[in-house]
Amino acid sequence: MTASARLTGVVPPLVTPLTPSYDVDTASLARLIQYQLAGGVNGVFVLGTSGEGTFLTDEQRQVVLETTVAEVAGQVPVLAGVIDTSTNRVAAHVSAALKAGVDALVATAPFYAATHRAEIERHFTRLAAQAGDTPLYAYDIPSRVGAKLPASVVISLGEQGVIAGVKDSSGQETSLRELVLSRREKQLENFAIMTGSEVTVDSALAFGVDGVVPGLGNVDPAGYVRLFKAAVAGDAATARAEQDRLFRLFDIINVADRSRMGASSAALGAFKAGLHLLGVIDSPVTAYPCIPLNDTEIAAVRPLLDRAGLH
Amino acid sequence: MTASARLTGVVPPLVTPLTPSYDVDTASLARLIQYQLAGGVNGVFVLGTSGEGTFLTDEQRQVVLETTVAEVAGQVPVLAGVIDTSTNRVAAHVSAALKAGVDALVATAPFYAATHRAEIERHFTRLAAQAGDTPLYAYDIPSRVGAKLPASVVISLGEQGVIAGVKDSSGQETSLRELVLSRREKQLENFAIMTGSEVTVDSALAFGVDGVVPGLGNVDPAGYVRLFKAAVAGDAATARAEQDRLFRLFDIINVADRSRMGASSAALGAFKAGLHLLGVIDSPVTAYPCIPLNDTEIAAVRPLLDRAGLH
Amino acid sequence: MTASARLTGVVPPLVTPLTPSYDVDTASLARLIQYQLAGGVNGVFVLGTSGEGTFLTDEQRQVVLETTVAEVAGQVPVLAGVIDTSTNRVAAHVSAALKAGVDALVATAPFYAATHRAEIERHFTRLAAQAGDTPLYAYDIPSRVGAKLPASVVISLGEQGVIAGVKDSSGQETSLRELVLSRREKQLENFAIMTGSEVTVDSALAFGVDGVVPGLGNVDPAGYVRLFKAAVAGDAATARAEQDRLFRLFDIINVADRSRMGASSAALGAFKAGLHLLGVIDSPVTAYPCIPLNDTEIAAVRPLLDRAGLH
Amino acid sequence: MTASARLTGVVPPLVTPLTPSYDVDTASLARLIQYQLAGGVNGVFVLGTSGEGTFLTDEQRQVVLETTVAEVAGQVPVLAGVIDTSTNRVAAHVSAALKAGVDALVATAPFYAATHRAEIERHFTRLAAQAGDTPLYAYDIPSRVGAKLPASVVISLGEQGVIAGVKDSSGQETSLRELVLSRREKQLENFAIMTGSEVTVDSALAFGVDGVVPGLGNVDPAGYVRLFKAAVAGDAATARAEQDRLFRLFDIINVADRSRMGASSAALGAFKAGLHLLGVIDSPVTAYPCIPLNDTEIAAVRPLLDRAGLH
Repeated sequence: MTASARLTGVVPPLVTPLTPSYDVDTASLARLIQYQLAGGVNGVFVLGTSGEGTFLTDEQRQVVLETTVAEVAGQVPVLAGVIDTSTNRVAAHVSAALKAGVDALVATAPFYAATHRAEIERHFTRLAAQAGDTPLYAYDIPSRVGAKLPASVVISLGEQGVIAGVKDSSGQETSLRELVLSRREKQLENFAIMTGSEVTVDSALAFGVDGVVPGLGNVDPAGYVRLFKAAVAGDAATARAEQDRLFRLFDIINVADRSRMGASSAALGAFKAGLHLLGVIDSPVTAYPCIPLNDTEIAAVRPLLDRAGLH
Repeated sequence: MTASARLTGVVPPLVTPLTPSYDVDTASLARLIQYQLAGGVNGVFVLGTSGEGTFLTDEQRQVVLETTVAEVAGQVPVLAGVIDTSTNRVAAHVSAALKAGVDALVATAPFYAATHRAEIERHFTRLAAQAGDTPLYAYDIPSRVGAKLPASVVISLGEQGVIAGVKDSSGQETSLRELVLSRREKQLENFAIMTGSEVTVDSALAFGVDGVVPGLGNVDPAGYVRLFKAAVAGDAATARAEQDRLFRLFDIINVADRSRMGASSAALGAFKAGLHLLGVIDSPVTAYPCIPLNDTEIAAVRPLLDRAGLH
Repeated sequence: MTASARLTGVVPPLVTPLTPSYDVDTASLARLIQYQLAGGVNGVFVLGTSGEGTFLTDEQRQVVLETTVAEVAGQVPVLAGVIDTSTNRVAAHVSAALKAGVDALVATAPFYAATHRAEIERHFTRLAAQAGDTPLYAYDIPSRVGAKLPASVVISLGEQGVIAGVKDSSGQETSLRELVLSRREKQLENFAIMTGSEVTVDSALAFGVDGVVPGLGNVDPAGYVRLFKAAVAGDAATARAEQDRLFRLFDIINVADRSRMGASSAALGAFKAGLHLLGVIDSPVTAYPCIPLNDTEIAAVRPLLDRAGLH
Repeated sequence: MTASARLTGVVPPLVTPLTPSYDVDTASLARLIQYQLAGGVNGVFVLGTSGEGTFLTDEQRQVVLETTVAEVAGQVPVLAGVIDTSTNRVAAHVSAALKAGVDALVATAPFYAATHRAEIERHFTRLAAQAGDTPLYAYDIPSRVGAKLPASVVISLGEQGVIAGVKDSSGQETSLRELVLSRREKQLENFAIMTGSEVTVDSALAFGVDGVVPGLGNVDPAGYVRLFKAAVAGDAATARAEQDRLFRLFDIINVADRSRMGASSAALGAFKAGLHLLGVIDSPVTAYPCIPLNDTEIAAVRPLLDRAGLH
């Protein structure tokens, strides 16, 4: 990927397969990557929220980066999450990711402390300077960061050439449409707008979004690729049917007993359980201290895979 | 401090003085520590929220720890914040803090990802095992972490001997009183309950809280020590008068123009500006990417110091 | 409208024109209704949030109902908001609306007090019994009521025949899609799903929503009707172009100085200013105690109308 | 009560006893009032949140007002809640309350619509003009209204003579202390500051609050009166012991199964169950559509009453 090519298509945020003793399972990660490439994805995004990046040590993050870059071997771009609380701490991840040879970087606004839009701009500006020719994407995920990245900040950073695009996981269609309209009005042709919402992809593509970074794409990359291709081809009916099927597949995040675990554990655990049941990864364990799905919950994922035609 | 002595009194969460080029200013930090000791504080807490711990690199955190341990030289306990997103990442800070020779550790629940109470219990349990004889305190700061640490979880961890106490910065008096009553009912004599709210200390001490971790104590440690001593001596009128004076001193966090910077920057910038004006630290700069107070705003802190009798 | 015909199309939530002394301006209301009918709308909804129903006395509400029923004269269905804090209080509005001869009723969940889903079901069930043959719609507007109406509650009430449909102003596309999929799976053919979001209509219609209740439709009913017709005809490009134009017209809600007034006042004031500038209503005043737009703000609406081709 | 006497002491927000068929049970209401007067309360507040005012029809509200004024017979002031969504609607309740002969009025900011501070000031100013010599109190209950009434607005309204005081149910001690300090600084001697928090009364009285409006006071008025008298007499130990006992009595709000009902229903149901078990009111039913406590839940209130010494 060069700075001048706009990111498009299906770029799943890969889960990080772990062993039962919480080491990175590089063999499973390699199989997951091959599963994605076979599904036809347009890129992979590691160490994002689905990748449990904030749960991993620096050493584990490095293993993920190096394994991924080696396994992908240039077939598609590798995007690396550099998610941490503040500019200085993100900068350390940027250095590590650049050294590992990734194709692009993905950073959130600072979190834990409350930041102002001017501070967010300073944050991205310094990171972009460090990244040099490697594109930097803003990652808007208010449910985790605690605040929405305003559309005007995103567009301003795009106009300044600081960021090459945005992954919007806000779930706010209005905000995404504002980005699309502003991009057109300001003629930011190379600015990529990707949605992080698994279940509204046909809509988003229809109004001008470039692609999707779907956590559920771990389990069904080929389905998202079919959806994307149908949408690009103008076949709205096929795109919607594919989206409806994936919408119901997404019900796997509700199999876990939420009185036992957090929302993150339930969703991530379900993605990993699906991949485990499909034979892609060895263990469905999520990162410590997340409570894993139990055998009953894992078994409950199976009929939902079947219903979606995944075997 | 031994594990059997309950933490009490005034334990300010020290700011981290920085140079204008964003290095840790160890000379200023040493002066700040001497200012605190001269004020009569019962302990110091570094790398907390006021210490901008989440803004510092691992190397900078280490400089703060080593400088503090050396400067305090055993006169009072040194508590170290080990705040990070998840158990594994906190564990790295625990190792570093233990190596630096701190007296106690202070950790929040995991953040960024949404965690369940069972996951929070696993988190603290593993950290306590790593900490060994060094006491571990839970830090409840929902405005930053995104969720309140339930009183029942805090008490349960205390009963299990996992944590030696809690710093409650929730601002919820009801929750703090529940902790005090539960402690008495369960006879957890050695469990420390500290409030992180600067402006409600006389109340909290009156209903049984052990002490305070006041950000504003950076600027006026002696005032908080007077307040604490009056409360312990049963002199409610003096305690309240001192609290009222400090309540108005706390207005310094409102001098900054909030259309220019975030809430964290405004509060931290004011504490640092106060210390700068009092000659304790060289520069009032806050950590990157925080916007610093400008000269006008710094000047506006002066009359509020004067009004509070600080020169 | 009979109970067996599913509500579809464009059903603007009419503003309530007021005189400068805060009486209902029935002449302006009549002109507004004619403006809507001339625009081709499929129904009108009075005393909703845009209608400032919660700001009006019972007597004023009655004037609005009677004026509307008389002016519409059966050409399209008249939906009446019966929004109040609890079942008993809503019931009084239901009686009044039925007496005035409206075609359908629209109620929110109880608010002010926190209610459970079982209590919400009891609420709608009793109101439906009172309404008899007159269809009752659930109105989901979490920004005002304080909580989202869960999709499972909405569908359950539909299956029981309690409600004839829902107006979803949650802005959550995922929830709306869940409703559409559940309706299909449960074969609730007569259950209407309407969106209250002005700026995502082409998407919503594409994935199966039946129509829209757009506050902005007060100002440009014909635009929404064109959008709806294009979508129904499968002309996605025209629908999107119309939506994009209306998206930018919606910028009128941002002309007011938000340091002077609340969000409701800014939005309602802009709709009324637009109608005033277009000659439809006499005064742009909003209900007491809302701060009205000043002359400068009203003037700033004009170029946005022009840009959207409204004169 | 005259406008020049500052409201102080214990003013319970009376529940509205209902029959199983949801009529106002005037005989039980009369007994409740006698129970309160026997307990030594300094006033009663009807049609507040505990009084389920927003659940009652206008006719039912009137029955409550008239029954209360007659039964109290001038022995203590009667405060009447006039809670509704907007100025005009509140004004109708003001008229009814004045006609019934109440001694003071209690109003919230407008809700459902989002209002700005200037709009809130207009709201109270118009209501005060209508109330004439009858004092008007502001009621700050952000959990229901959706926003905190800023201390600066409350104080400004006090300085203008618009309101005679505030009932603060925000649970934010900092805000309450700001009010107390501002009152002193501005010499608003006749401005009353009452807390609505049942479990922090000794603290609040210690730092200068005038009294309490405790929902739990329905069940144990004499306990709150003892607490108040001890605090006024400077006997902090007795006040705290009484508060601790009441803190644990407040656990009755947790006996109901929250998977079956809302928070309001659980709390109100517990107060009414307590009064029913103590023989004060006939039926513990809460207003429709609230789910009532079942027999098991009602029975679970008994040991908590016993523990608190109530028989």
